[in-house]
Amino acid sequence: MPSLRVAAAQMNPTVGDLEANLSRVVDAMAAAEAAGCDLICFPELVLTGYPPEDLLLKDGFVTDVVGALTTAAEASGDCVAIVGAVVPATTFGLGVADASDARGFGATPPLCNVAAVLHRGEVVGVVAKRLLPNYAVFDEQRWFLPGVGPQLLFRVAGAVVGVAVCEDLWSASGPAAQLADEGCDVIVSINASPFSLGQDEERRQVLASRVAETGCAIVYVNQVGGQDELVFDGGSMVLSETGQLLARAPSFTEHLLICDLPFHDTSDEVTDALTELSATSRRTDAPIDGEVAAPLDDQAAVYAALVMGTADYLGKNGFREAVIGLSGGIDSTLVATIAVDALGPDRVRGISMPSRYSSDHSRSDAEDLARRLGIRLDTVPIEPAHHAFTEMLTGPLGTDVVGLTDENLQSRLRGVLLMAISNETGAIVLTTGNKSEMATGYSTLYGDSAGGFAVIKDVPKTLVYDLCRFRNEMARAAGEEEPIPVAVIDKPPSAELRPDQLDEDSLPPYELLDPIVAGYVEGDRTAPELIALGHDPAMVERVTRLVDLSEYKRRQMPPGPRITTKAFGRDRRMPITNRYRPRPTEPSTS
Amino acid sequence: MPSLRVAAAQMNPTVGDLEANLSRVVDAMAAAEAAGCDLICFPELVLTGYPPEDLLLKDGFVTDVVGALTTAAEASGDCVAIVGAVVPATTFGLGVADASDARGFGATPPLCNVAAVLHRGEVVGVVAKRLLPNYAVFDEQRWFLPGVGPQLLFRVAGAVVGVAVCEDLWSASGPAAQLADEGCDVIVSINASPFSLGQDEERRQVLASRVAETGCAIVYVNQVGGQDELVFDGGSMVLSETGQLLARAPSFTEHLLICDLPFHDTSDEVTDALTELSATSRRTDAPIDGEVAAPLDDQAAVYAALVMGTADYLGKNGFREAVIGLSGGIDSTLVATIAVDALGPDRVRGISMPSRYSSDHSRSDAEDLARRLGIRLDTVPIEPAHHAFTEMLTGPLGTDVVGLTDENLQSRLRGVLLMAISNETGAIVLTTGNKSEMATGYSTLYGDSAGGFAVIKDVPKTLVYDLCRFRNEMARAAGEEEPIPVAVIDKPPSAELRPDQLDEDSLPPYELLDPIVAGYVEGDRTAPELIALGHDPAMVERVTRLVDLSEYKRRQMPPGPRITTKAFGRDRRMPITNRYRPRPTEPSTS
Repeated sequence: MPSLRVAAAQMNPTVGDLEANLSRVVDAMAAAEAAGCDLICFPELVLTGYPPEDLLLKDGFVTDVVGALTTAAEASGDCVAIVGAVVPATTFGLGVADASDARGFGATPPLCNVAAVLHRGEVVGVVAKRLLPNYAVFDEQRWFLPGVGPQLLFRVAGAVVGVAVCEDLWSASGPAAQLADEGCDVIVSINASPFSLGQDEERRQVLASRVAETGCAIVYVNQVGGQDELVFDGGSMVLSETGQLLARAPSFTEHLLICDLPFHDTSDEVTDALTELSATSRRTDAPIDGEVAAPLDDQAAVYAALVMGTADYLGKNGFREAVIGLSGGIDSTLVATIAVDALGPDRVRGISMPSRYSSDHSRSDAEDLARRLGIRLDTVPIEPAHHAFTEMLTGPLGTDVVGLTDENLQSRLRGVLLMAISNETGAIVLTTGNKSEMATGYSTLYGDSAGGFAVIKDVPKTLVYDLCRFRNEMARAAGEEEPIPVAVIDKPPSAELRPDQLDEDSLPPYELLDPIVAGYVEGDRTAPELIALGHDPAMVERVTRLVDLSEYKRRQMPPGPRITTKAFGRDRRMPITNRYRPRPTEPSTS
Repeated sequence: MPSLRVAAAQMNPTVGDLEANLSRVVDAMAAAEAAGCDLICFPELVLTGYPPEDLLLKDGFVTDVVGALTTAAEASGDCVAIVGAVVPATTFGLGVADASDARGFGATPPLCNVAAVLHRGEVVGVVAKRLLPNYAVFDEQRWFLPGVGPQLLFRVAGAVVGVAVCEDLWSASGPAAQLADEGCDVIVSINASPFSLGQDEERRQVLASRVAETGCAIVYVNQVGGQDELVFDGGSMVLSETGQLLARAPSFTEHLLICDLPFHDTSDEVTDALTELSATSRRTDAPIDGEVAAPLDDQAAVYAALVMGTADYLGKNGFREAVIGLSGGIDSTLVATIAVDALGPDRVRGISMPSRYSSDHSRSDAEDLARRLGIRLDTVPIEPAHHAFTEMLTGPLGTDVVGLTDENLQSRLRGVLLMAISNETGAIVLTTGNKSEMATGYSTLYGDSAGGFAVIKDVPKTLVYDLCRFRNEMARAAGEEEPIPVAVIDKPPSAELRPDQLDEDSLPPYELLDPIVAGYVEGDRTAPELIALGHDPAMVERVTRLVDLSEYKRRQMPPGPRITTKAFGRDRRMPITNRYRPRPTEPSTS
């Protein structure tokens, strides 16, 4: 059985950094050439980074991407390179849908999200993405026209190779089936597929189904890295035509995955659209068996996503250091631990800002954490500012500062302190709110939510606890000191903004709250549907109302890594002004 | 020549408030019935309000909308009602595009954005929108499938009536042309078309072109009102088949526009898809000549949009009162004036918060403004808090608080004060940053940008001056006192956060800055293109860099009304993490 040597370049591009992305693509092409590879593939839109969003509306940007693609083509040799890029829909002989009725694509003709096939100095073919996702975090129909018509095929080392761009592989009856019908042996699937809980397993199932349906081998390459709210996990892999997993890259890290891929030559069935590139394999050495990295379990994957999302947001935006308000509570404890794993202890700084209501154990827990993590901790009591504002406000308020006003005031004074330290030192403030708080609005605008990156904003509180235990287990397994003081995990959660305050005074227990939030937010259920599913009616009414009323707060939150199937942000586009209440009729629970 | 009596219900629905929207639709139907109308039309998606966004992903919401539509149908009489709604694509015999490859529409089948035709207690036809805008602020391909196939036609008072939903009317070769080909006499165009500068004139030109091309009369109805960042201006109108403007509703106000519309009976040419509803007109009284309101000029329209956007954001979200930090500068002066026009003086409150650097004239200008507007003004010097924080910060900073850190600190102390007043009184804080500042990041996160609604965030500074002069002229024309002190307009802009500070120390003069921002943001030009257009190279490099670097700040800004062709927010989806720099080659200036 013949085989070809393939390379999947699991890269971490930076959005907009065309020169750096290009340079790394060219380096990987050279490495694959030297390793005797017949084909190397790169992630979707690797030259721009994914998603470039409305940079695509700038003609000058697209011109520069096409320029970078031309440079990449000039660097190509005998190893065929498949590179994700964007090009105007009217170029490279692309077959695209009719756009005569389309408005709003800007001054240029519309664009295509493409896989460009490069060989011996030339662009030898350009394949346009056909299925353009426009749901969840995706807006691809905003910028791109879909490819239509016959699929291009390429003879590489004797194999008939076709290309599918990301979503194209997810439909059973779509482009993959068409490639198989046209005689394809090997489907190269280039992707920018963001991480969420469960996504990696779903991806493996989809790939297995496509192999079973088409009889084609699949080379799947995905990007890694953080881009604003998205984290890409990689998981690049090579499946044989029988569905055998020949190679798999480790998740959340850059990797050049190389392996030899056997194929049945089925060229008799091939249609006209075949471009002959190479008849036999370039490899001369012994066959390479790809490495097969094990997938991560859920908690390990989420933790890795949070670390990579944080490291990349800071690194790609030029922040060297982070500063975190350490309350001694579990949220700031987890955020500080993630920050240290992302940046190292020398680049993380904690600030303890006790108020008149802070408990002794909070201060000692914060100190214990800082010692375990090896980070600097400063303590700045907020009492002088608290006192000053209390006096200043009695005039315009005509009353003493008490209740929620006083609680929010304390939180905002801490925000002012942290932001002043950020302004002076250049360190970014990491905020510590979790998804349960984001959902219910249990946070103070410009207070605890003030900062540049919200590390755990998509992590429900119950998962915050799980991740702390997971991180301590990780340390024990490595024979290291547990970073997280057990007292922090064991004590009941409290904002400590008034005497003897507990979260459960204001919110349902998190074990009951989190499933309601998940059903309402991620499941898009209505309150009557959640009640019909067995949740406590009063609790459902209260929680869903809180979620609705907090939309205005969420709109002003800093970005943070998406790790669930539906994060707040571009993933969930709810109006702030929204008076929807379900009609009092029998709910649909289907 | 026969005629039919038509009514266009220029309504202000509230997103999600199905019962209230339904009730007002039914009331207008009754009014049209009583006035002898043959047909009444309502804006696009009038039952949900536009845009309902991801409420559409909740099956329960869609079920409730269909329920409201059924109730509306039951209320219909002899006057045909055309009502904007959303229904599942598999219902009402809709002809829709094949969706077998579509993912991400949620658990239900995908939806259609429809015009439902109601008559004598029944839904007699449902027309699905064909062109789904997915650019600028629009995301319609996220939720809807397009209608395809033959158009439905309806005989109303002898005329052959077809329906186009918003975007459907904007293509010369699209649905309107198809309606004309199929024998339509009168096109009913239902819209939710947001205001932006120049939009109303473009709309009138498009309608004139469609009449000229098709020979059909057009009944155009558009919603009014504010919805988060969008403001809808109305401008509903009736054009005869010769292009004569028979009636036009006043902008930015609800209106039931009624007029008699003559038509040529061309029923010989009609295709099979004609539903017979009524053969002759219901009207028995004298013909009604519709009123023809004059369109507003640009400044009047922008001012009206800001007032309506502010009034509706507050009203629809349950805020009775607004509080504004009055610096004596032109931005807070304009915002306070708009707020008083939106809410009345008793519901607006100013707070003057001088620091050690505030000038005497700033305080007196703020007092003069408050007197002219008739609003309450409290003065709270921030010195005690400023002093407290200066002391508290020397420890962790290891240095005195000076420079930008000190400037931001003062701004944030004012934010804390305003938010405490907001927490205690329930009044919403209106922020005062303009578009030039939003663009360049000339604002303090959690400081002057802290608040619930950013009234002039899409108004460039040069337009801020124009609007102040416009508002004073309005007052003079009405024989009233000018609300805006002339000293505020005449003095050079300053943030007054250090001694003798002027905006021009940090930014180019606004007359030079604003065109660069417009070219970069609204025009999507790159820096080399702007330089090639004749702007100062150093200034272009500096301004475009500032715009790029401030994306993270804009992401945390409160919403505010969109009045230009491209506002920050959902209209301009730029990545925060973005290292794009144009390649050093000859720019395309086409």
